[in-house]
Amino acid sequence: MLQKAVYTLLVCLSAYWKVGAEIQQIPQADTVKISDFGAVPNSYVNIVPAVKAALEVCKQKKNPVLVFPKGRYDFWPQYAVEKAYYESNTTDNNPKCNGVFIEGFHRLTIDARGSSFIFHGRMQPFTLDHSSSITIRRVNINWDIPLTAQAEVIDTAKGYIDIRIDKSQFPYIIEDKKLAFIGEGWKGKLKMVMEFDKVSHSITPQTGDDAALGNGWKNYTALDPGNGIVRLSYDFLRKPRKGNILVLRHNDRDHAGIFLFHSKNVLLENITIYHCAGLGVLSQFSENLSFIHVDLIPDNNKGRFFSGHDDGLHFSGCKGKILVDSCRFAGLMDDPINVHGIYVNIIKKIASNKLLCRFMEPMSIGLEWARAGEHISFVDNHSLQTIGDGIVSSFFPINASDFEITFVNSLPQNLQLNFGLENLTWTPEVTVQNSYFGSCRARGILVATPQKIIIEGNTFESSGSAILIAGDINSWYESGGVKDVLIRKNNFLAPCLTSNYQFSEAIISIFPEIPVLTNNTPAFHRNIRIVENEFHPYDYPVLFAQSVDGLIFGNNCLQRSYDYKPFHRHKATFSLIACKNVIIKNNFIDMNLLGKNINLHFMSKKEVKLLQQEKLTFD
Amino acid sequence: MLQKAVYTLLVCLSAYWKVGAEIQQIPQADTVKISDFGAVPNSYVNIVPAVKAALEVCKQKKNPVLVFPKGRYDFWPQYAVEKAYYESNTTDNNPKCNGVFIEGFHRLTIDARGSSFIFHGRMQPFTLDHSSSITIRRVNINWDIPLTAQAEVIDTAKGYIDIRIDKSQFPYIIEDKKLAFIGEGWKGKLKMVMEFDKVSHSITPQTGDDAALGNGWKNYTALDPGNGIVRLSYDFLRKPRKGNILVLRHNDRDHAGIFLFHSKNVLLENITIYHCAGLGVLSQFSENLSFIHVDLIPDNNKGRFFSGHDDGLHFSGCKGKILVDSCRFAGLMDDPINVHGIYVNIIKKIASNKLLCRFMEPMSIGLEWARAGEHISFVDNHSLQTIGDGIVSSFFPINASDFEITFVNSLPQNLQLNFGLENLTWTPEVTVQNSYFGSCRARGILVATPQKIIIEGNTFESSGSAILIAGDINSWYESGGVKDVLIRKNNFLAPCLTSNYQFSEAIISIFPEIPVLTNNTPAFHRNIRIVENEFHPYDYPVLFAQSVDGLIFGNNCLQRSYDYKPFHRHKATFSLIACKNVIIKNNFIDMNLLGKNINLHFMSKKEVKLLQQEKLTFD
Repeated sequence: MLQKAVYTLLVCLSAYWKVGAEIQQIPQADTVKISDFGAVPNSYVNIVPAVKAALEVCKQKKNPVLVFPKGRYDFWPQYAVEKAYYESNTTDNNPKCNGVFIEGFHRLTIDARGSSFIFHGRMQPFTLDHSSSITIRRVNINWDIPLTAQAEVIDTAKGYIDIRIDKSQFPYIIEDKKLAFIGEGWKGKLKMVMEFDKVSHSITPQTGDDAALGNGWKNYTALDPGNGIVRLSYDFLRKPRKGNILVLRHNDRDHAGIFLFHSKNVLLENITIYHCAGLGVLSQFSENLSFIHVDLIPDNNKGRFFSGHDDGLHFSGCKGKILVDSCRFAGLMDDPINVHGIYVNIIKKIASNKLLCRFMEPMSIGLEWARAGEHISFVDNHSLQTIGDGIVSSFFPINASDFEITFVNSLPQNLQLNFGLENLTWTPEVTVQNSYFGSCRARGILVATPQKIIIEGNTFESSGSAILIAGDINSWYESGGVKDVLIRKNNFLAPCLTSNYQFSEAIISIFPEIPVLTNNTPAFHRNIRIVENEFHPYDYPVLFAQSVDGLIFGNNCLQRSYDYKPFHRHKATFSLIACKNVIIKNNFIDMNLLGKNINLHFMSKKEVKLLQQEKLTFD
Repeated sequence: MLQKAVYTLLVCLSAYWKVGAEIQQIPQADTVKISDFGAVPNSYVNIVPAVKAALEVCKQKKNPVLVFPKGRYDFWPQYAVEKAYYESNTTDNNPKCNGVFIEGFHRLTIDARGSSFIFHGRMQPFTLDHSSSITIRRVNINWDIPLTAQAEVIDTAKGYIDIRIDKSQFPYIIEDKKLAFIGEGWKGKLKMVMEFDKVSHSITPQTGDDAALGNGWKNYTALDPGNGIVRLSYDFLRKPRKGNILVLRHNDRDHAGIFLFHSKNVLLENITIYHCAGLGVLSQFSENLSFIHVDLIPDNNKGRFFSGHDDGLHFSGCKGKILVDSCRFAGLMDDPINVHGIYVNIIKKIASNKLLCRFMEPMSIGLEWARAGEHISFVDNHSLQTIGDGIVSSFFPINASDFEITFVNSLPQNLQLNFGLENLTWTPEVTVQNSYFGSCRARGILVATPQKIIIEGNTFESSGSAILIAGDINSWYESGGVKDVLIRKNNFLAPCLTSNYQFSEAIISIFPEIPVLTNNTPAFHRNIRIVENEFHPYDYPVLFAQSVDGLIFGNNCLQRSYDYKPFHRHKATFSLIACKNVIIKNNFIDMNLLGKNINLHFMSKKEVKLLQQEKLTFD
């Protein structure tokens, strides 16, 4: 009930704000109208040439505002600017096909006045390349034929699952007895299945990833008798509920919805991304970015349960201030928000001040990772400890994977091969507030930056952890340690942590991957305050924290929910590993809360200060 | 029964011939494989760049054969060569988007080995531009989302018709209460409806064009309650039968399926055109063209009742020999074969040997209509009589509609404004044999050329006239008078002339539009022999002939059919108007044949010789 009420309130407020935005004035002087370039709304004709021509004209203006009469506009790959980009956390299918291509602009507003921009095939709706002072407003981004599919569960029995697929939205074929989706210039084989509840539109508890159909499900065979029902035959270890919706994942993540590339002072507001071919908004080496009323949600009118193909707002190597305010996320097939840098590893010491380094994650290569004058730290890949730092004098790419980097001063003596480098210059302050994190695959917010982080006033119904603060140099290579985190006045509703995903150890999971962890390992993260939040846990784990020095969990309300059946392998409300200076105080603890216990590893009780927490016990 | 048997035989023979073609040898030396250019069959990825690259390589070879491993290949507008063409009898939306673009080739074979070429949006699958000695073999041409739609009639009642549309093949919207179809870069409003019988796949008798739903049907309003059924509300004067299929026509005819432009010595064989965006094969100012086993038929596997958007094989201003052998036509939305030139009208006499002329039919403008040395006749636009001729010395286009033409000698004195010019040099010999003309909108064969015409051994189930020999200078501007026509050993089955279409006066309709017709008007057409054919008329009109000098109708068998209810406004077996030297002899006349009469206008009985035709009477 509570979560429903909060959701309704958010929807109402969102509608109100959007109406408010409608009446804002646009300076007439520099207005450029897309209709002057042959574009006709609702014509279904490719608008790309008109947009290119209009942007050319905008470039001549001082304060250009490109406006679209409200309507539907179709974007096709034909005539779109093609350019190769190495996009972070994205498959490097190149060139990228750019729908609205904004390159080298230093002031531009695009106001689509509530228009729908419909994309076709593998495309990147908006690309901002080396641009600044850019506003994009009032636009809906969608695909008629998305790069993710869904099906309704019609029947299940021993040995098979019958599903119905809307062929008009999700054209499919059976090829080599497997289900493959076909679209506008692509074919994608089914590779992952997510189950959504028909009524709540949430991911069914305990079904994350392979858990939906059970291990081995990929051995299924598909049969299409031609009556609109596809039969998937296999002795599935788990079967979805009849009537529920399976989101069927296929295809590479190869284009962001909006790509901010080496750009700054960008405002995105009143934007709904119903779908995209990869990360929703990917910000890469960009600066001062505001997202206000940016929604990544399923298109209910089309009966869809999924929105974007992967993450929502993804930040890789950004700086300045990131503000996420009043945004909504639901139906994403990966984390709604992910803020991180990219660790690179040392492959070779070339000289006393020169290294050969490598991008280790295949989806994050070819980045323009550093420039002269930038501040780099050197990190032990076993302990994740910083062992020194340096200032860049030059950066030289050898190929997409490797680069040479030279420093102003000599490198620390104890620098070893495979140690990591983190670019400290490109770390942002992050504020995420007043936002709604609905049911998405994986976690809610992933954040890793040494600058100030504020997560405040949000509502979480994440399927996995609501918040994950990780950091590692050995698997995802996403830097780095946090130093100042405030998690305040958020509402963590019962759906949080209903399925298992990587690193989802608790509703709030602070889990740096530190290969060598002992009682004496210095902390990787510092100064995290979790205060004045509401938690509605139905299961044990509320907080899992590893390698944190300075952790406050205070003035929170922990009210037990009975909405779901507990299942998590962790049976402690608080799991603390190798932490220092922990304060747990003044929290309201529901007497029926499961566990009410604190489990410690690689640390002693004396590191934990309990104040006014009589109900809590140590394991 | 008979028609069924003939059809089956044709299908079997066709299959046999196609297998025969499979084992033909291709010279290895100059073989170019599309797979060497990155093309992967069944990948659904746009093959256009690979085809362009492969054709570049072919151009370097002496005897190039471009082969495709059998499979599906997708063609998208992206990267396709765009070029403006004025295509005859086609809407001039330009530029045209050319899938396989063959320009300036002087020897080339494309052997697709039975592959399916699937096109997307407004495209011209094959374009031959100023090329010669070209063979295209073993390819199927189709669209996933065609530019014609269809629907099943679910229910009818007073005031409405409920139809079901397969949204995956025929995406639609309701816009301003009207039905519009949307596809890959286009939107098309419903503008014509054809009813097909669910079982026989033939056009329902007496439903041609507006007759399907009755006059005024365009005042309908459409409603889509979202259950997959669209309700068309109006007090329709006629309703289709429940279960039948409505072919819903929309969209411009703006690209041919295969466009032969100023090309010669072209062989198309074993080609199936399941759909195209305009005329099936448009041959324009081309020479020596053979069509063997070229089918324009609906894709039964997709449940379709229509094939091409308009005509099948359309010839405008061609010369040399045209051979159509063993081809099949069904479900076309206009005439399967149309052979004609283009009359142009005199707008101004500029000098004693120089005229300003104009293309009068808006769909046939901008043609490169003549070259120095070509033979032109001058035609009175009232009587359609040739009043002289001349040899071109130069041709100069002023704009798309008008051109100046200069002659070697002075023009005839009696030449008047609005008289027509016919280019006699560009008139072809035509042979159409062993072919099947199934149920298509409009007529079977339209032919107008002064060269030899042979129509032999074909089977007709045309919805309108099986054969129309017209010619006019005032409405369609399609020249010209025939001089040598042999129509022999064809089988005109009962479905012929079951619906009304323009000029469909009888099963064979010879109907030049001559504005001023008297007993003394000299004949426009000459020397037409209709011999040894089988006719199965269920209605009166078998032959309608106007302005023919030298007409033989002999040794034919006229066997009455009872398959349909007679309806035609003409109540004569033979209608003869202003003809001379007519012989009707030795025909077998079924005693139950309707009419058995000869109706004369603007001519006397003495022009008609009846031999051994005791059953026939003059009205």
